[in-house]
Amino acid sequence: MYMQNPVFIPGPTNMPEILRKASDMPTLDHRSPLFGEILRPALAGVKKVLKSESASIFVFPSTGTGGWETAITNTLSPGDRVLAARYGMFSHRWIDMCQRHGLKVDVIDAKWGEGAPADRYEEILVADKAHEIKAVLVTHNETATGVKSDIAAIRRTLDAAGHPALLFVDGVSSIASMDFRMDEWGVDIAVTGSQKGFMLPAGLAITAFSPRAIEALETAKLPRTFFDIRDMAKSYANNAYPYTPAVGLLNGLKMSTELLLAEGLDQVFLRHHRIASGIRAAVHAWGLEICATHERYYSDTVTAIRTPEGFDATSIVAHAAKKYDVAFGVGLGDVAGKVFRIGHLGSLTDVMALSGVATAEMAMADLGLSIKLGSGVAAAQEYYRNDIASEVKAAA
Amino acid sequence: MYMQNPVFIPGPTNMPEILRKASDMPTLDHRSPLFGEILRPALAGVKKVLKSESASIFVFPSTGTGGWETAITNTLSPGDRVLAARYGMFSHRWIDMCQRHGLKVDVIDAKWGEGAPADRYEEILVADKAHEIKAVLVTHNETATGVKSDIAAIRRTLDAAGHPALLFVDGVSSIASMDFRMDEWGVDIAVTGSQKGFMLPAGLAITAFSPRAIEALETAKLPRTFFDIRDMAKSYANNAYPYTPAVGLLNGLKMSTELLLAEGLDQVFLRHHRIASGIRAAVHAWGLEICATHERYYSDTVTAIRTPEGFDATSIVAHAAKKYDVAFGVGLGDVAGKVFRIGHLGSLTDVMALSGVATAEMAMADLGLSIKLGSGVAAAQEYYRNDIASEVKAAA
Amino acid sequence: MYMQNPVFIPGPTNMPEILRKASDMPTLDHRSPLFGEILRPALAGVKKVLKSESASIFVFPSTGTGGWETAITNTLSPGDRVLAARYGMFSHRWIDMCQRHGLKVDVIDAKWGEGAPADRYEEILVADKAHEIKAVLVTHNETATGVKSDIAAIRRTLDAAGHPALLFVDGVSSIASMDFRMDEWGVDIAVTGSQKGFMLPAGLAITAFSPRAIEALETAKLPRTFFDIRDMAKSYANNAYPYTPAVGLLNGLKMSTELLLAEGLDQVFLRHHRIASGIRAAVHAWGLEICATHERYYSDTVTAIRTPEGFDATSIVAHAAKKYDVAFGVGLGDVAGKVFRIGHLGSLTDVMALSGVATAEMAMADLGLSIKLGSGVAAAQEYYRNDIASEVKAAA
Amino acid sequence: MYMQNPVFIPGPTNMPEILRKASDMPTLDHRSPLFGEILRPALAGVKKVLKSESASIFVFPSTGTGGWETAITNTLSPGDRVLAARYGMFSHRWIDMCQRHGLKVDVIDAKWGEGAPADRYEEILVADKAHEIKAVLVTHNETATGVKSDIAAIRRTLDAAGHPALLFVDGVSSIASMDFRMDEWGVDIAVTGSQKGFMLPAGLAITAFSPRAIEALETAKLPRTFFDIRDMAKSYANNAYPYTPAVGLLNGLKMSTELLLAEGLDQVFLRHHRIASGIRAAVHAWGLEICATHERYYSDTVTAIRTPEGFDATSIVAHAAKKYDVAFGVGLGDVAGKVFRIGHLGSLTDVMALSGVATAEMAMADLGLSIKLGSGVAAAQEYYRNDIASEVKAAA
Repeated sequence: MYMQNPVFIPGPTNMPEILRKASDMPTLDHRSPLFGEILRPALAGVKKVLKSESASIFVFPSTGTGGWETAITNTLSPGDRVLAARYGMFSHRWIDMCQRHGLKVDVIDAKWGEGAPADRYEEILVADKAHEIKAVLVTHNETATGVKSDIAAIRRTLDAAGHPALLFVDGVSSIASMDFRMDEWGVDIAVTGSQKGFMLPAGLAITAFSPRAIEALETAKLPRTFFDIRDMAKSYANNAYPYTPAVGLLNGLKMSTELLLAEGLDQVFLRHHRIASGIRAAVHAWGLEICATHERYYSDTVTAIRTPEGFDATSIVAHAAKKYDVAFGVGLGDVAGKVFRIGHLGSLTDVMALSGVATAEMAMADLGLSIKLGSGVAAAQEYYRNDIASEVKAAA
Repeated sequence: MYMQNPVFIPGPTNMPEILRKASDMPTLDHRSPLFGEILRPALAGVKKVLKSESASIFVFPSTGTGGWETAITNTLSPGDRVLAARYGMFSHRWIDMCQRHGLKVDVIDAKWGEGAPADRYEEILVADKAHEIKAVLVTHNETATGVKSDIAAIRRTLDAAGHPALLFVDGVSSIASMDFRMDEWGVDIAVTGSQKGFMLPAGLAITAFSPRAIEALETAKLPRTFFDIRDMAKSYANNAYPYTPAVGLLNGLKMSTELLLAEGLDQVFLRHHRIASGIRAAVHAWGLEICATHERYYSDTVTAIRTPEGFDATSIVAHAAKKYDVAFGVGLGDVAGKVFRIGHLGSLTDVMALSGVATAEMAMADLGLSIKLGSGVAAAQEYYRNDIASEVKAAA
Repeated sequence: MYMQNPVFIPGPTNMPEILRKASDMPTLDHRSPLFGEILRPALAGVKKVLKSESASIFVFPSTGTGGWETAITNTLSPGDRVLAARYGMFSHRWIDMCQRHGLKVDVIDAKWGEGAPADRYEEILVADKAHEIKAVLVTHNETATGVKSDIAAIRRTLDAAGHPALLFVDGVSSIASMDFRMDEWGVDIAVTGSQKGFMLPAGLAITAFSPRAIEALETAKLPRTFFDIRDMAKSYANNAYPYTPAVGLLNGLKMSTELLLAEGLDQVFLRHHRIASGIRAAVHAWGLEICATHERYYSDTVTAIRTPEGFDATSIVAHAAKKYDVAFGVGLGDVAGKVFRIGHLGSLTDVMALSGVATAEMAMADLGLSIKLGSGVAAAQEYYRNDIASEVKAAA
Repeated sequence: MYMQNPVFIPGPTNMPEILRKASDMPTLDHRSPLFGEILRPALAGVKKVLKSESASIFVFPSTGTGGWETAITNTLSPGDRVLAARYGMFSHRWIDMCQRHGLKVDVIDAKWGEGAPADRYEEILVADKAHEIKAVLVTHNETATGVKSDIAAIRRTLDAAGHPALLFVDGVSSIASMDFRMDEWGVDIAVTGSQKGFMLPAGLAITAFSPRAIEALETAKLPRTFFDIRDMAKSYANNAYPYTPAVGLLNGLKMSTELLLAEGLDQVFLRHHRIASGIRAAVHAWGLEICATHERYYSDTVTAIRTPEGFDATSIVAHAAKKYDVAFGVGLGDVAGKVFRIGHLGSLTDVMALSGVATAEMAMADLGLSIKLGSGVAAAQEYYRNDIASEVKAAA
């Protein structure tokens, strides 16, 4: 009755107490040397989480959307051509943003439920002999459909085509929960926010620029001030900000990276995989379908679940909120009303996940779907009990 | 991984965020008038929760055990005779305390799993023509066995016997979660703590004295200072304490009573009954037995569950803590190793309860008990879904 | 030794505990109806604090700088002409932002220490018969110099010139601490942040648009997405955000406006005036000069203090931080090294202010300035003791 | 206006944020192994702060008064003779407690303003050839008068008399702020609380028993249960408590000792001495007298200040609270109305201390005392500026 149930939205996530306390700081003079002792390790920690040696990290008091704007305004000029695929609401929005900023977007429309189609990227890149395309955009984890894309594959298409375009990746709902390899995958800009894998309140846009992306600054003519990384870089050199930083959130970010690295990134990703697998087992036990059309697309941070034809999936979310005080995610855009989503990223335990599965069951049964109570829970329990990773963790 | 799972021990309970924040106060001068604005409503609120018009409330920086000591040292003298029943670890401990203070205790030993036997109380009271027995002790809710006793029935035995003994009730794990009627039941002293139905951190002994109990002060010769309600009463008259009060906890207590009264005591009790009923349904679905031997003894705050002969019930608690990071209660005293306990008092939701049931299932299955995964969850879900009180609450 | 001293930077300010607790929230689904119960009163409260009936409020997860960008990108087009005065670092930065966005800025350079020169604004506006100037920018309180400008006077110049340009006001370090009258002064866009008068952590850009400013949206061609108020307006209509809102900070903003309105805006402004007056009395007692060249420019939120010729004012700030763990503000831009600043906005008491004055005295004496210890404190004490507003407050 | 001013009561003290956060914990199962990871270092830390190798530490959910009761009920029997001096309200109360428990107290009445008179202790001990006196009680720092007593001197009187009585010391307002040497001084029981030098909320009675005090358990016949250290010792052996512990406060205690030991006890004591010396310099500058009659009695944790004959010192406290929202301590008992007290223990900085001095000046001036504003502040500033310890600290 008092906001005690976990949330199952695909971000903001449940927050560990220790990160809330780290973020809730008394006022510290952001122009004092103490601020550097927060900023430097926060930036360094993010770099490690991204598995990058060479990236420059810039963190803005903003959100993932601001991170997208940072990516394009610092590297591109009006009229520039970019390539992007649309297969969900968030890939759609990034494309929309590009268009609003006067970029020409080659849009690849893929089915909602599938990931970024590497073959079609390659086709277009190969065809672009003049190298007019300045940037290639990919959404690593499409939050609207629970679909993961293969970033390494997109990198290979650029390499295969010998194309110099920059590779921009929206990792908002993947980074820090799913494997992300900035350097290995040749990502030029990665974007995320504080409220997802980093398990913090919303309020930070976290961006990483490769050396090549930094070079693009020189020629980028899109107007920008708040999101200008030149000001940010100049200030960072003095452990400062060009304006007032969100000191508490940065302190939270510092500690979040400490927690993630202490647990071990592999273990963090395994944990998300285990929890997600349990939830997928529950979906199968219910006899329902996952929006992601193939196992290779399965997201370890959010699962979108198709409800039977003719049933309004949104009613599950509304009912669960009203009757059980539990938040799930509705379907958005093309899959509105057709799916509901269980977010399982950030700080979640098997036990919390089971309460989400149990609630979804009750809500679906309440609304007349033919769901056997306990069936999804049992499938998830079976998975969690027997999972080896789980035992490894318990032994740690 | 970060203390995010609910606890299922029979107190301290899960704490609502709002009560943690109310309890976590900056330093306030406890000799300033501001303190009275915390103390007065806290005491008045407790009185309402106890359904008393006439009780004097005294709150000590201590625990329920300190509350017991307050009860006996303020009313009795060395050598005084008291009557008490023992049917669990906590009723046992109160008797032990009386003996250590030099009281003569007429102990009624009842089966662990049953409640206070009114017939045997009556027998002894009737036989005590000389009215040597000065106080009658009853544990309202025996936390060790999950057994509720009928306080009104004990009152009736006193009345039937025309016996003037005071009636002391340990309401530690019942008050504020289960119905308690100080005045109607003629309770002379009620004792509880902050960490149970009031959903606060441990640290307060909360006691209520009827006018007759207050009168007994005059003759009570047991030594006391810290727990002396005369000092407390004198200080309360000035909105003060005889020593340094736990201001933050008192502020939490004030807000706790506000929350409870705003929800409505009937609704609070109904909520606990619903959650407890769901858990009992799960136990039955598992094919296990509840320690309480009869439905009339069922506690709405804690359920002790008997495991099959030869199985060490304690291993469930250890395993659930280690593998799933979930805390249940072990069996104590006579039922050690024979039962494990699920605490479901204080601030708990159906959804949290289901995660406890699901965890217990996994733990039992892991340890080789023949438990069908999901079976208990389904039984509890069925109960929670259909419960009318639940719908009433949702509509509120 | 544990971050216990107040800060005396001109923002972020000291934060009342109650606002920190309101901002530190568990995760709430920002797509649920509960979010509207935070958003609506927050927006309504800001409107009242701005004394506006007709403004539309838009709050971004950003800072005051983002608020400036919101103002210009939503109303102007590349090549548009704007008029602005520069008399400190913050008015300078806003001009710089306009230029980066391709606006042509008519810059009026005024002395650092003076406010916006209404006569020169009028001259230029009258001369602009073609009404090429689309917007007039004024910094209400120049934080770098501690100078207040007369917004009503600027409005009068527009009216006198019959000029239709929009009036944009940077109220970052004035709003909610000093009187601000959006409607009466005909302000078209007001900009502030969460970390100043609203006494919250940094992280919110708070903007208010008059109906005329909203109309300008139709023709504004500067690219924008994150700061686009059209998306924001559309979402607000559904009590939602176009991206993830900083829910905790918005909840803090809601409560901040409740506190400010409960205290009464007049009383809030009087309190800031009293505290500022005491600090100015201290400066005079020290025999030093205030950077603001005339009493009418005195800011009630920040005082910049000129140190004697040849003395490095910045050393005071560094020394106070190092030896006494107290943060003051350094001089910026043209007055770097010539002034140090005492911030006295947001949540401050007379008693805290005195500790700042006492620390400044020690630091200056330590560094060899001829300052009589206790002299400034005595002057401030005299002011605080006798102030009638103070007594009114005490009686409340 | 929002509880932002420091408090200057002689405890509870101002609390560092880090200790508040450590104390404000989610519910942890106090029967799980995790609890031992809090309890063990907390007990070990207290032992180090007391400079003891051999003491057994027992911490109760209670207050210093409960600590006194623990001391006497665990070691003495009804009718036992104890020796104690009374020179303030707190030494008085401990004597009163002994009498209520049926002990015979040889009371040495000393002047309020002086410390424990070693010569009179010695006289009585030497005379007690039969060794009837079982315990000698001393209040290390009499909080009511701001008087420090020489515990080593009392120990010498016992040794000189060859007397086997136990030595009990009330260190409530000294321990962790002033030097305390349990082993070197041969202290048998030391008592303190959480809300003083440990800078925590009230709620813990902290006691230390020497091996000889532990031996006395065998013969002690005073009734006790809640405060029985036998139960506590038995439970501690299993990292547990005999009842529900105040887990959060214990976690705070663990961290408090970590902070104190990291700073270094010598540095902690020096810091208290510096702050106290500055405040005493202020009192002398005001032309007032310190209640402690001789420099050797000066307390480094609280200063009681005599106001001129005929002036009601209590009015200063009431006025400062009402007009300036600052809490000082009133005079108690024999010095009620004659002194007011400035508490300066726990977590305090020079800067905070100056705000207390400045407030006291204003309050006294407001009430007509002939106090030159700024005079006390200047004296304290002079002290703080020049203090070498301060510079050492700054360099650290």
